Amino acid sequence: MTIENLSSNKSFGGWHKQYGHQSESLGCAMRFAIYLPPQVATGQKVPVLYWLSGLTCTDENFMQKAGAHRIAAELGIAIVAPDTSPRGEGIADDESYDLGQGAGFYVNATEQPWARHYRMYDYVLNELPALIEAVFPVNDQRAIAGHSMGGHGALVLALRNPQRFRSVSAFSPISNPVSCPWGEKAFSAYLGKDTARWSDYDASVLMRDAREFVPALVDQGEADNFLAEQLKPEALQRAANASGYPLELRRHEGYDHSYYFIASFIEQHLRFHGRYLGCTS
Amino acid sequence: MTIENLSSNKSFGGWHKQYGHQSESLGCAMRFAIYLPPQVATGQKVPVLYWLSGLTCTDENFMQKAGAHRIAAELGIAIVAPDTSPRGEGIADDESYDLGQGAGFYVNATEQPWARHYRMYDYVLNELPALIEAVFPVNDQRAIAGHSMGGHGALVLALRNPQRFRSVSAFSPISNPVSCPWGEKAFSAYLGKDTARWSDYDASVLMRDAREFVPALVDQGEADNFLAEQLKPEALQRAANASGYPLELRRHEGYDHSYYFIASFIEQHLRFHGRYLGCTS
Repeated sequence: MTIENLSSNKSFGGWHKQYGHQSESLGCAMRFAIYLPPQVATGQKVPVLYWLSGLTCTDENFMQKAGAHRIAAELGIAIVAPDTSPRGEGIADDESYDLGQGAGFYVNATEQPWARHYRMYDYVLNELPALIEAVFPVNDQRAIAGHSMGGHGALVLALRNPQRFRSVSAFSPISNPVSCPWGEKAFSAYLGKDTARWSDYDASVLMRDAREFVPALVDQGEADNFLAEQLKPEALQRAANASGYPLELRRHEGYDHSYYFIASFIEQHLRFHGRYLGCTS
Repeated sequence: MTIENLSSNKSFGGWHKQYGHQSESLGCAMRFAIYLPPQVATGQKVPVLYWLSGLTCTDENFMQKAGAHRIAAELGIAIVAPDTSPRGEGIADDESYDLGQGAGFYVNATEQPWARHYRMYDYVLNELPALIEAVFPVNDQRAIAGHSMGGHGALVLALRNPQRFRSVSAFSPISNPVSCPWGEKAFSAYLGKDTARWSDYDASVLMRDAREFVPALVDQGEADNFLAEQLKPEALQRAANASGYPLELRRHEGYDHSYYFIASFIEQHLRFHGRYLGCTS
């Protein structure tokens, strides 16, 4: 398990670092970022929040724009931000922004030409946490969160693996991808035309049928251009009502799909996760 | 005075907005960003912090990466971020990152081919505040701050115009441009070979000779790659010692030249300015 440190920046008394490694599940070189709070300098093992980003993003967007380091430093939470897809020469791609590189949708693709590399579900669920827990001073308390496509990924990963995550949160998630244009396009390509195979990656379907619960917080801006056509939080709310899922879905007047929305409420998300991750402050 | 709204994002209960306008002093179309805190919605006129960015930046870097909106919203301070130079087709430029577009150095150029458009000193001192105070619900209490090249600009503007700014702060400023490679290159091009004409744009020279004082806070990272060759805060400290200038210069172990450093300490800068801008919280 070889990883290469690519950059280091001191931030709020802790460290933001980027690493490169060869991913087995994805079959290519990958980069991720980690924020290590100041508590690790004292030998303390800290819990980890995995952050999944949206379409076109890399590991950098959240780390640079969310303003999350301040609260992570206070609470003693590490944050890990993977890339949003396999990348590089020889990796299948598409000219559009919402398919291929930068748009992995956190699934294990079964169709050609995607099946060889597009296995972000496995990467985020298994390979990346195993690497993080082997290399960095973290414990096995995990939370997961994300934005838009990454909010979809975070919800799906937590709903399918409630024993692996203490809590889940999302900003503006693609809540019902089996019935929105982004999801239909990506799932058709990655999973094939048989829509019955899409349900495993749909947060609303999974939440409706859930029997084991992970505390879930979702924030949605009312001025989000993608709200009605792509995001459909009402489907997630209906699913939670049906199964009695502990979902807190909040709508915020005037906020859009940008990182300014995430920055405005990330403190509340981190404090929400902190309650389930054993953070004392 | 026509300005065009280019974007709006709700942020921490206030609004981040980008505007385009035709600048008279620069002779080209310019873009700036403003953060309007929630207090303006109640009819309150708020003070303004002008933020000057560093080499290669636009109005976006600070707004997206500094995490400043949270405290500006709490204190009730508007933030205005101009671009770092005139821009566009027909505007003189240079292939290097540290001269021409994105590198205006906040001077009024006297030499060709720069003199026609490169008048960022006038733009930031006069045209932009006049526009801001005519169009937005702000009062005439002004502070100024910046990073690197923008830290140089903020210090020079405040030192030469102590009646115009209540306070000044800088991260990693180019403190003595008349004797560092960035400054020598830019000032030779913009101001000519006669180094006697450079002193008006050198914070250390101006601070040494200052008789009217503006409270000044400067933060510098000890792990900044540009510290020894380009930034020279020791020259600024010597100047403050000579004139008795109220400069607080702080050095921070481990921090570099990036926005992670700015984000880590921007709250302290905003609270510093808030004390002089009449903010009550």
